Amino acid sequence: MKMNAADGMNYAPVGEKKAVVKPGEFVFSVCRLDHGHIYGMCNALTEAGATLKYIWDPEPERVAHFLKMYPQATPAESEAQVLEDKDTMMIAAAAVTSERGPFGVKVLEHGKDYFTDKAPFTTMAQLEKAKETVARTGKKYMVYYSERLHVEGAIMAGYLIDAGEIGKVISVTGFGPHRLGAGNRPAWFFEKAKYGGILCDIGSHQIEQYLHFAGEEDATVTLARIGNYGHPEYPELDDFGDCALTGKNGTTNYFRVDWFTPQGLRTWGDGRTLILGTDGFIEIRKYINLASEQNGGNHVYLVNGKGEQYFDATGKTGFPFFGGLILDCLNRTEKAMTQAHAFKAAELCLKAQEQAVIIAP
Amino acid sequence: MKMNAADGMNYAPVGEKKAVVKPGEFVFSVCRLDHGHIYGMCNALTEAGATLKYIWDPEPERVAHFLKMYPQATPAESEAQVLEDKDTMMIAAAAVTSERGPFGVKVLEHGKDYFTDKAPFTTMAQLEKAKETVARTGKKYMVYYSERLHVEGAIMAGYLIDAGEIGKVISVTGFGPHRLGAGNRPAWFFEKAKYGGILCDIGSHQIEQYLHFAGEEDATVTLARIGNYGHPEYPELDDFGDCALTGKNGTTNYFRVDWFTPQGLRTWGDGRTLILGTDGFIEIRKYINLASEQNGGNHVYLVNGKGEQYFDATGKTGFPFFGGLILDCLNRTEKAMTQAHAFKAAELCLKAQEQAVIIAP
Repeated sequence: MKMNAADGMNYAPVGEKKAVVKPGEFVFSVCRLDHGHIYGMCNALTEAGATLKYIWDPEPERVAHFLKMYPQATPAESEAQVLEDKDTMMIAAAAVTSERGPFGVKVLEHGKDYFTDKAPFTTMAQLEKAKETVARTGKKYMVYYSERLHVEGAIMAGYLIDAGEIGKVISVTGFGPHRLGAGNRPAWFFEKAKYGGILCDIGSHQIEQYLHFAGEEDATVTLARIGNYGHPEYPELDDFGDCALTGKNGTTNYFRVDWFTPQGLRTWGDGRTLILGTDGFIEIRKYINLASEQNGGNHVYLVNGKGEQYFDATGKTGFPFFGGLILDCLNRTEKAMTQAHAFKAAELCLKAQEQAVIIAP
Repeated sequence: MKMNAADGMNYAPVGEKKAVVKPGEFVFSVCRLDHGHIYGMCNALTEAGATLKYIWDPEPERVAHFLKMYPQATPAESEAQVLEDKDTMMIAAAAVTSERGPFGVKVLEHGKDYFTDKAPFTTMAQLEKAKETVARTGKKYMVYYSERLHVEGAIMAGYLIDAGEIGKVISVTGFGPHRLGAGNRPAWFFEKAKYGGILCDIGSHQIEQYLHFAGEEDATVTLARIGNYGHPEYPELDDFGDCALTGKNGTTNYFRVDWFTPQGLRTWGDGRTLILGTDGFIEIRKYINLASEQNGGNHVYLVNGKGEQYFDATGKTGFPFFGGLILDCLNRTEKAMTQAHAFKAAELCLKAQEQAVIIAP
């Protein structure tokens, strides 16, 4: 099982337990442990009060590892058993990226909501099929855009924007560098048809953040570049990508993603988000403050007419999305995230990848 | 005289005196005090040993202010007197942007080198005329790209790159926010035909830095956007611009410039440069470290296989460009900066402005 050693692949924050439901009120099961994000997804759902029932994966070793973390789960005998289970209201999954769409459609067809690791699709056809299935079944196809939903610094930034601290948002810039840790990645991670390309994969986080922070419902891809600058041994790996979007309301976005985090960084990536508004700006240093003795991440800087302020968001906001998702599923509402938003981020990351100009080698 | 109160317009670092020539060996004069950058230019040239002879400007009040700072200068009776002066080897000028090209050509035609504030041109025709005049006269048309040449943090970053600390440069991202201080700006500052547009004006710094740090001799503009998001009272002001370039050697650049620095920031702009290489990355926090008690700027962060390092570059590198420029003029070399580089940055910022899509309002 190659899942633990690659930093970032194993990003699974532990938050405060803040149950929005009583035990048994919201039951979910887990299938497909291809990406370590499943642990972050399960942490957050169970902290929010969800009850975990089944775990299924074709590899017994991965199931055994999962059960160490979640001894309350019951190993299922087959994927069909989970899909047909009457108690399970949602299936959470972190399949190989190219299988997330087809599996999600199957989940919806079985009358369950679906919560998948990002990126949720690798092709536009998968997205279209999922849209059609959501429309027909009324079920949810939700996505774990962890770099906002599971980062307290990002949650706090959203609150500051909502409170009007920087006026109207003009531009959002994101940096999503990741450590490759190639030796600990599975083979599919380097096959473009399976991982989808860098703008589709880790770019999806960036696009979701942009739409959220800028309050945009739609945008156009105005620049997309990909390259392999340093990894000829993995010819299908985009080790670099960048992209710009122009929002329907006239806001702008640029982001850069890469697999070049050097060994000397104390964490898997120096993720940043810079948000410019008419009355101020925000910087989120998500996972580290470079060369600082401050531990951990969630460093939020706010500058406006009142001065420069620093907030350590760790332990301050929690992760409200996950409880919200549970309630949305129970009440058939869209308070935590709309289906349109989850799909729009997916659509734009697919478009970015499709339109990308290859600039290296 | 409206020149002093707008932060940033008055950016005039004082460095160590490190003369590369003896008094009288390199004589320059000054004309046109339309932009406060002239003070930074004169500080740096005189610190490097240049001898200041004449000062000329049509506004006596501006000359009087200049003489307070540089009592060694002689007020000229006319611009012609300076142009025809036999001792003057170089004329330094910070004219209205749209007049920099035509005045520079005049300087070259008088057998003198020219050192102008950026941006050096507002139209491609001006650039072509200057190129032709340089080719014919053999004189230099040099540009004060202060956000690299006059920032020790940027100088140090260049040294770190040259030393191989981050491997091969892949991408350079720049942020050049500025405080508007509109009440202290002259009228021409808000007339597009005179200031040239934001990508031409403050964008020129960013493009020059990119070419330098990435070692690129040419590049293509792949994205350019401008807007006026918050200043309807100045309809010709671009208060926001961003731009992406793809270098001939396959490196990438993105930069964002704006006039939205809020009053609460302790300096005129949170200028940053982020440089990604195959083996590490550098961040320069040029003028401030947000919400930190560290005074001043020139904060350089280097992360590579060896770890995370912080350098305070203040007082460490000096400003080698200016002494180099003096020697280049005396020896007719191009060690401090090539003419091709100065013109290429100018060309690309003109192209960016020409190609820019207006996204707001």
